[in-house]
Amino acid sequence: MTERLRLKKNADRRLKAGHLWLYSNEIDTQETPLKGVEPGAQAVIEAASGKPMGIAYVNPNSLICARVVSRDVNVRLDRSLLVHRFNQALALRERLFDKPFYRLVFGEGDLLPGLVVDRFGDVLVVQLNTLGMERLGEEIVAALDKVLAPRAIVFKNDSSGRRQEQLESHVEVVHGELPDQVLLEENGVRFAAPVVDGQKTGWFFDHRANRAWLNALVEGRRVLDLYSYVGGWGVQAAAHGAAEVLCVDRSGEALERVAENAALNAVGDRVAIGEADIFEALASLKADGEQFDVVILDPPAFIKKRKDIPNGERAYARLNREAMRLLGRDGLLMSASCSMHLTPERLVECVRGAVRHQDRHGQLIYQGGQGADHPVHPSIPETAYLKALGVRVFRD
Amino acid sequence: MTERLRLKKNADRRLKAGHLWLYSNEIDTQETPLKGVEPGAQAVIEAASGKPMGIAYVNPNSLICARVVSRDVNVRLDRSLLVHRFNQALALRERLFDKPFYRLVFGEGDLLPGLVVDRFGDVLVVQLNTLGMERLGEEIVAALDKVLAPRAIVFKNDSSGRRQEQLESHVEVVHGELPDQVLLEENGVRFAAPVVDGQKTGWFFDHRANRAWLNALVEGRRVLDLYSYVGGWGVQAAAHGAAEVLCVDRSGEALERVAENAALNAVGDRVAIGEADIFEALASLKADGEQFDVVILDPPAFIKKRKDIPNGERAYARLNREAMRLLGRDGLLMSASCSMHLTPERLVECVRGAVRHQDRHGQLIYQGGQGADHPVHPSIPETAYLKALGVRVFRD
Repeated sequence: MTERLRLKKNADRRLKAGHLWLYSNEIDTQETPLKGVEPGAQAVIEAASGKPMGIAYVNPNSLICARVVSRDVNVRLDRSLLVHRFNQALALRERLFDKPFYRLVFGEGDLLPGLVVDRFGDVLVVQLNTLGMERLGEEIVAALDKVLAPRAIVFKNDSSGRRQEQLESHVEVVHGELPDQVLLEENGVRFAAPVVDGQKTGWFFDHRANRAWLNALVEGRRVLDLYSYVGGWGVQAAAHGAAEVLCVDRSGEALERVAENAALNAVGDRVAIGEADIFEALASLKADGEQFDVVILDPPAFIKKRKDIPNGERAYARLNREAMRLLGRDGLLMSASCSMHLTPERLVECVRGAVRHQDRHGQLIYQGGQGADHPVHPSIPETAYLKALGVRVFRD
Repeated sequence: MTERLRLKKNADRRLKAGHLWLYSNEIDTQETPLKGVEPGAQAVIEAASGKPMGIAYVNPNSLICARVVSRDVNVRLDRSLLVHRFNQALALRERLFDKPFYRLVFGEGDLLPGLVVDRFGDVLVVQLNTLGMERLGEEIVAALDKVLAPRAIVFKNDSSGRRQEQLESHVEVVHGELPDQVLLEENGVRFAAPVVDGQKTGWFFDHRANRAWLNALVEGRRVLDLYSYVGGWGVQAAAHGAAEVLCVDRSGEALERVAENAALNAVGDRVAIGEADIFEALASLKADGEQFDVVILDPPAFIKKRKDIPNGERAYARLNREAMRLLGRDGLLMSASCSMHLTPERLVECVRGAVRHQDRHGQLIYQGGQGADHPVHPSIPETAYLKALGVRVFRD
């Protein structure tokens, strides 16, 4: 028997507008009790009128209790539909990129809510971020195998989103064998990605275009890369001719990888590393009178939930202010934020405040977002999260 | 004697935040009558407390009655400061671009309110958009001559903004001699710009990066360029390998130039032109069953003033809907708007509506703005005007 969930009156507007999420308070639980639905099951979503609107997978214990997987109520998200969606996603990436290093599946943006797949050549790293996707794990592996026949598939299931879905963390190689080193190339620069031990899937493909933009402007410059992680920005800058790069991170492990990645591109002599808390590093570089031509500020998400917004905005503002102090007379700040809850306008506001505070002038010469392999769903504002501002900062 | 304008209490907030504009209703006219200030004069702006805040040029007959030219009350905007600002602007462009084709001065974004200078190699095209800049015309020519020693300087003073400043239209070569053809290169493609007879300064440098993004995705594709003007998008697409390009514009003169620009790049055989009203062209292409892989939609500003917003938004929505209909099964829409009053969110909304209306899926794979030679002033939202969305449109 097919499960079904009926929406309350007027609760169908978001879905009609193209969004894929249903919240538990939108379900007419008198008509269709949520508790009666098997966790992970796929159900027909009905408008209050009874009209079927699509198929969604259900997690009765999550705030977002269902995510639509198709508007066609006659299909289910199964191996066959997964293969179709993977092929659609692949077609886009193959059109966009010459080499097989990218986010292959970006959840809702690729009509596969809760699923992330990053491709490192013949190694795929998968994140199952919802119960619905967790239940489809085997089908996902089989479908990926059918579409790409990868050498290895890793489940990197340790996202914070899983906790909200009451899922355990587990990281494992679920298919094939993982090579000793997982390599990728971005903007012509090679990196090793720590797909098992690193942050998220091991690499942040989302900044590719933003880094490409910056790479063109670093030749001969002195560059500071804050929150460097494994050197995505800093090593690329060195490989594109920066005279000197300092990568700062509080993780010694990440910094070891910076050094390895620098060596991989034969720019080890121009990349220095510094292990420190970023605010402490900013203070001590300032105290030492250090100045840079380019400062890259790519912090982790300071705002994970709506309630963190005021504190988070203050942190971004302070960070931009402190970072800007280290710029020379005519400098360039690359200020990024991956917090979905920080609007682009508020990040501009952080930059504006910093510029005014120091009585300098600012010119926003670049306003980038996430790369094309992280497609934004036009009906789902939550799928747009990344901001990258290129700011020229000068004294008049 | 130095003129001065005193602000009303609390009217200094915008200026303190870094904005450069003063509105006439913000002046304490009892203390400092606006009518007493000579049009075009430079005046010290004082806070309500009497504290000097900066120097502005004044137009007592304009809604924006003064624009700040410096925070330093001891300077004036004169030849010397113009030379300094031009050098600052030039330094940015020379860092950004290999070749001398760009917007050299973007008004407020370059701390020169009301002044636009586009550079086509050794030809400079100047727009004086305010009375304050009109009065400085000779100094501007002298300063540009000092910084760049151009072969010719053209005043293209026919902007709509001039009417609000009660200035006449006039277009003239004010320095040197204009060559028969004014050439430029953008993303490796050559064009002739109609600097005297064309729209604005003859060319739209602001879309350079957006066109570069699209150029990488057109190889072998069938492309429709709507509101083509002289072929900035369409001819570039052909030069980057598009199989077939149709440029549509309602100006036969602009289309003649499309053909010339196509010939200039030896792609005349792949660029067709169509003279028509765009909505009529959309209807007739649809009726003929024509389909395209890529549709470019770069209309003129439908929203010139705040009161035009509702009508303008409807026009953008309709245009995006009609244009999307001409896309094949897996197509790409480049949807642009240069209306400052249309927010990026509202343009996304137009795209979202079109996608839903046709029961297709959309992926926003690019969200671009104006190029880096049109720097946005972080305190002046009005300096950000251009939007360009790259949307993959497909059927599931």
